[in-house]
This record gives sequence, structure tokens and C-alpha cells, in this order.
Amino acid sequence: MTKNIIVGQSGGPTAVINGSLYGVVAEGLKHPDRIGRVYGMINGIEGFLQGHMMDIGSLDQTNELEMVRTTPGAYLGSCRYKLPESLEDAVYPQLFQKFEELGIGYFFYIGGNDSMDTVSKLSRYAQTIGSDIRFIGVPKTIDNDLVETDHTPGYGSAAKYVATVVREISADATVYDNKQSVTIVEIMGRHAGWLTAASILARKFEGDNPVLIYVPEVAFDQEAFIAKVTESLKHTPNLVVCISEGIHDEDGTFICEYSSEVGTDTFGHKMLTGSGKYLENLVKERLGVKVRSIELNVCQRCSCAHLSRVDLDESENAGIFAVLSALAGETGKMINFIRNKSVPYELSYGTADVNIICNQEKTVPLEWIIADGSDISNEFIDYVRPLTQGFVELPTKNGIPLFAYRK
Amino acid sequence: MTKNIIVGQSGGPTAVINGSLYGVVAEGLKHPDRIGRVYGMINGIEGFLQGHMMDIGSLDQTNELEMVRTTPGAYLGSCRYKLPESLEDAVYPQLFQKFEELGIGYFFYIGGNDSMDTVSKLSRYAQTIGSDIRFIGVPKTIDNDLVETDHTPGYGSAAKYVATVVREISADATVYDNKQSVTIVEIMGRHAGWLTAASILARKFEGDNPVLIYVPEVAFDQEAFIAKVTESLKHTPNLVVCISEGIHDEDGTFICEYSSEVGTDTFGHKMLTGSGKYLENLVKERLGVKVRSIELNVCQRCSCAHLSRVDLDESENAGIFAVLSALAGETGKMINFIRNKSVPYELSYGTADVNIICNQEKTVPLEWIIADGSDISNEFIDYVRPLTQGFVELPTKNGIPLFAYRK
Repeated sequence: MTKNIIVGQSGGPTAVINGSLYGVVAEGLKHPDRIGRVYGMINGIEGFLQGHMMDIGSLDQTNELEMVRTTPGAYLGSCRYKLPESLEDAVYPQLFQKFEELGIGYFFYIGGNDSMDTVSKLSRYAQTIGSDIRFIGVPKTIDNDLVETDHTPGYGSAAKYVATVVREISADATVYDNKQSVTIVEIMGRHAGWLTAASILARKFEGDNPVLIYVPEVAFDQEAFIAKVTESLKHTPNLVVCISEGIHDEDGTFICEYSSEVGTDTFGHKMLTGSGKYLENLVKERLGVKVRSIELNVCQRCSCAHLSRVDLDESENAGIFAVLSALAGETGKMINFIRNKSVPYELSYGTADVNIICNQEKTVPLEWIIADGSDISNEFIDYVRPLTQGFVELPTKNGIPLFAYRK
Repeated sequence: MTKNIIVGQSGGPTAVINGSLYGVVAEGLKHPDRIGRVYGMINGIEGFLQGHMMDIGSLDQTNELEMVRTTPGAYLGSCRYKLPESLEDAVYPQLFQKFEELGIGYFFYIGGNDSMDTVSKLSRYAQTIGSDIRFIGVPKTIDNDLVETDHTPGYGSAAKYVATVVREISADATVYDNKQSVTIVEIMGRHAGWLTAASILARKFEGDNPVLIYVPEVAFDQEAFIAKVTESLKHTPNLVVCISEGIHDEDGTFICEYSSEVGTDTFGHKMLTGSGKYLENLVKERLGVKVRSIELNVCQRCSCAHLSRVDLDESENAGIFAVLSALAGETGKMINFIRNKSVPYELSYGTADVNIICNQEKTVPLEWIIADGSDISNEFIDYVRPLTQGFVELPTKNGIPLFAYRK
């Protein structure tokens, strides 16, 4: 007897989250003896509760599914919705009744930390009622902050984006190289500095820009920062500094919070600027040099300009492996990556208990953060480089990438 | 008898400005009977006055010159330096003495409006003293605002960047498509909306995002804007709006100036936010929907992720044609582009009097701005599309583009 799949996406997007979706759908369709239809939740578990879903397996008849693979964002739509802590809540029987009506045997949820919480709760509830539906999480996050996995799908492409763009910004910064200047690049990452650390790949040679790199794993000292900038300007007149948005001082105050004192706008809103803008003003005030700050915006998580072939393939494989694991009887698991070797790069796929993943964050090891917290070590380069390799050619029309979208 | 070339770069960079530099150098080296060395000014005319230059022709012996071609920024370094208005100023004989010492017969300056002013002044001074040095300007600007040319080198790649990134941002914007949201994208262009207009290429179908596009050629009315956003949200729940940084109201006040009233930061600096940030707050205040604003940063002018093959080739050809024009005896000219046909795209290269170019700005024709100034017409698409075509493969190492740089 066949059972059906339901798959959903949750949390912030990545450039390759749809690669995992493609993997789940494509693999799901390869087992007609055991799997019937492949449904997609529209806007994750939140939309599903409101009855929003589609027969995504039917896209297989069109070019659309192939295009989904390289489309950034979340093809099915996402949500930020946390299931109630109490498994006694009425939402659980409600959900499982829907699963039963749809003949669901396999549930896949593609997301980060909070999404694994959803998988954890549903699998635990299933156990209490003796349901045999299998619940598997497929990791994704540009933040690379999930435990129990070497890295997360989505990180490699975001890291490659950051490295490339910081190299471009460094080229731009040296255009007026007869005048001193400081360029501060603010990169996503509130508690983990993985993405900011990847900016080290932008260096063309030892000592090249970005000369200074600050991650949130260690406390940020404004005076020490000014001293480092002063020192660095002596040998690098056009200095590029990369910082995580989440850098904070010793007592945990985010650096961006210092700028929240600046007042209110014409509507009475508190003016909040980022850490980069705050440090721009600090450097201008203290050193009197030309300074600019650049906030790498959502392109960090949605640009398909610098897709890593390795990352896209691994994302897809994570989706495939999720289906195979569910068919093998696993539930309450997240697909994880086990690195066998860095040179040459070899990866194995496995599963980890979702319950020990969902409320933890993996940060950059302190021994990889050097130079009083202003630089990253070469060990990190060995770690990150394999994840950013290989080129992905996108389908284009008139020179602009083609994306899939739900009509 | 051979004469030498001196070439310089000036003003803001583009992704392909070094393509023109490559064109000048490569073509210069092809005429050993008439051209001896090819010198480069470091940091334009300003650096040259201080004695900074290099023998850029000697790079021909290395791979470096080939890499210069696809390196963003300005390989020789740039400057923002205006020569004195009075040709009686002592700087002119000083410059021409240096030219004589170096055996210069041909002077090429790659830049925008202000750079053409330099070419104009030097060529006029040459005339007054009977010098036979030839002065030729090679256009570049992402702003596309030079008169007497169909378009400018650098614009096509920047337009392609904007179109691609706005399409990516639109994909990102629809991730939570069960909730209304407005995303405001601020694009470079203080007086001319060419680059902002190119965001229209991001639309996947009629009526797709960006639904609203505002350029600085027409006055921006805040109430009309709120009405358009309200109306558009009815059919597009995740609305993307593109604006030029230079949008202004009827009496010429820049929209970003409204936000300058917000107060001062902890250092006593006036807090200036962009037009996008101001409109973000306006929409939030008036409509209560989720709003974010994204400022496309310097990547607009330095990203090599979306180089247009057409743009890069034309940039290089502009450099080549500059050398050929100088050899043919022309001086006081800027290389210009004459479009013969859009379909199929056919371009001719010519020269225009630099004196009528240097203090004018070309803006988007008013008849291409439609829907009460909130949209761009299809005529513009026919104009811009050919300039964004074709893919350029960059040299890479470990997945990151390789750039040339002066040691």
C-alpha cells in the first residue's frame, strides 16, 4: 500500500533551499511502489493548518520542477510558526487528522533551528499516539549554526557570495588609493560568525583586505578596534573591515544598540542603525579618515550569482537522503553531514536525533579566532573552502536568470 | 618617429572600466611604428601631477594585462580632480612640460562627465600653444548620463546587475507570501534614472515585481506614492518598489532630505538616511504593513557577477577606437556609440566634440516614464535589453574570481 509525502519549507530562505525541495520531490517520485503523491505545504505548517497545499509532484510533468532546483527563496513559501510546547494542545490531533485524510506516511520539513523543533514535536506526538508517520528534518541555513552536522546546506553558497562580494568591494575601495579610507562591511550572523569568517577567502595574499574580521563569538572592544584600525591603516591605506551584525561588547550589549540612542525620526520611530553604521561614525569621529559602511543585504541569502556546485548538490542530496531514510523507517531525525576528509573533500550523509539539535546553536570554535578577536585562522579556510567550490550554470532568458514561481 | 601614450582613469569605477583600459593598452602596443611606450597615470591627472605613473604597456609580457580586462574598480587608481577653469593657470604649462619629457603624443582619459572636462581643457590648451598631442576621452559611467552617445560603457553591466538582483530580491520577498509586505529597493542615480529603470527587466510577466518604479526625472509625490502602494498591495501582497536615490519632490527637495531632520547621533553627526529608509518609515506609519528597504550598495558599480558580454566588448572597443582615432589625427573628442538598429542590435563607433559633452547630463526621456511617474514603458526595454546580453566567464581560483591589482 502506498503512502503520500508532504514536504514544507520554514524559516529564512537560502539560495539552495529549493535544491533540497527538488531532492525530496524527485526522489519521492522514484518509489511508486511505496510512495503515491508528493504534496507541498504552502507557507509551511502554518499554511498547511489553514488548508494551503499543492500537488508538487505533478510539476514533474513540466520544466518547472527542474527550474525549482536553482530558484532562490522558498518555492512553497515559508513561515515562522512555532508549534505549542504542550503536546496536549488541540493543534496536534488536528494536524494528524489532516495527515490521515491525505494518506500521509512521510513528512519532510526543510529549515533551520525552529523547523527542527517542529519535527521534534510532531515526531514525539506521533509516538504518543502510535502513529507510524515518519518525520524527517532537512537542514538549511546560511548561518551554519546547527549542531550535529559538519555544516548546513545553504552555507557554502552564502559563504562564496560573501567572499566574492568582499573581494569586489575591496577592489572598489582601492580606487582612490592615494587617500586613506576605511570600508566596514556588515555581514549577517547574530550569534554565529560563520558567514563573516568566510570573508577571509576574499584575500588575494597574506595581509590583504579584509585585514580585520570580527565575529560575535568573542567580545568586541571599541577601543581595541580603533587601535587595530589605526595600526592597519599604516600598511593598508584603503582598509576593509568585516563585522558580523551581532558583534557585542563584554556585557553582551550589541554594538548596534549604541546607535539606538540617536533619536527618533519624523514619525517618532526610534532610529536604529546597524553595527556597521555605528562603527562608521566611531571611526570618522576618532580618526577623521574617510569611512563608509556597507550592509550586505538579503542578497547574502537569495543571490544565485555565486551558487556553489558542492552546496547545491549537497542540498539536493540531503533531500534525497531524507526520503531514503524515511523509507528505511527512520523518524525524529535530521539529515546530517559527516566530513570524512577535507583534502580531497569527502562527505557522508547520516541522520541525527532531531531532539538534541533543535534548541542549540553551533558557533565558530574559539581556537579559530585569532589576533585578539580581529582575525580568523587558516584552519577555518581548510574547513570552508571545499564548501564553496564549483560553478552552477543557471537557465537564463535575455541574460537574466529564470526562476520558478507558484502561479 | 614614435610618440608615447599616456592613459588615465578618473571618477567612480564601473565593472568594465578596465576593459577600456585594456583596449587602449592592447591597441597601443599594436602600432610600434608610431607608438612607443604606453604609460599609465596612477590616480589620474592628480597623481600624474605628483609624478605617479607606470609603464602599463610592459604588463603585456605577463598574464596580468589579460586579467585587468575583467577586474572591477580602476586598475590605475582614480581621482576626483578638476583642472582650473582658467587656461592661464600654471598647472597647464607644468603638465605639458611633463608630457614633453615623456615624449607623449597621445593622451587618453577614461571617465565620465568631469573627466571629459579634463580632456576639453587640455585639448583647448594644446591648441593655444600649438601642441600636437592628441586628447581623447573614453566614456564610462554606470549612470548612462553622457550626451552625444547612445549609451555609456559600464551601464549595460550595471543594468544587468540591477535587473538580476531585483529579481532575486523579489523571490526573497515572496517567501512569506501569506503576509503583506513592501520591499523598497534604492538604486544609484541622483539626477538620471537609467539604472533604476533597468529594474523593469526583473519582471517575469506583465504586472510582476517590481510593480512600481520611480526615477528622478519627474517629481515624486508622497501622497500619490502611498495611494499607488495601497492599490498595488491589493493584487501583489509582497510588493517590490524600486526608487532612484535622487527622487525629489516638486520643489526639488530630495526625498532623503526629509529624513535629515531626525536628529544627531552620539557624536553630534546629523543622521542621514537614504530615500529608501525614509519611505520605509512612511509606508510603515501610513499603512501599517511589514516594510523593509534595501540599498543596493557599491556592488552596482563593482560587481563582476553579471557582466554583460556586450558591455565588456564595447568598453574594450571604445579603448581601441580611441587609439585609432588619435592615430587618425583626432583630438578634443570623446568616443561615442551610435546605435544603428536594436533588432538585431548593431552599433557603430564614432567621435563627438568633447566640449559639448562635459557639462551636460542625459536623462531618461519623459515619454518613457508612464503611469503618473510610477512605471517605465516598453520602449525603454527595447533600448536597454541589447546592452545587457551575453555572459563573461571570469578567471577564478578556488571558486573566487581572480582580480589584477597593482603591487
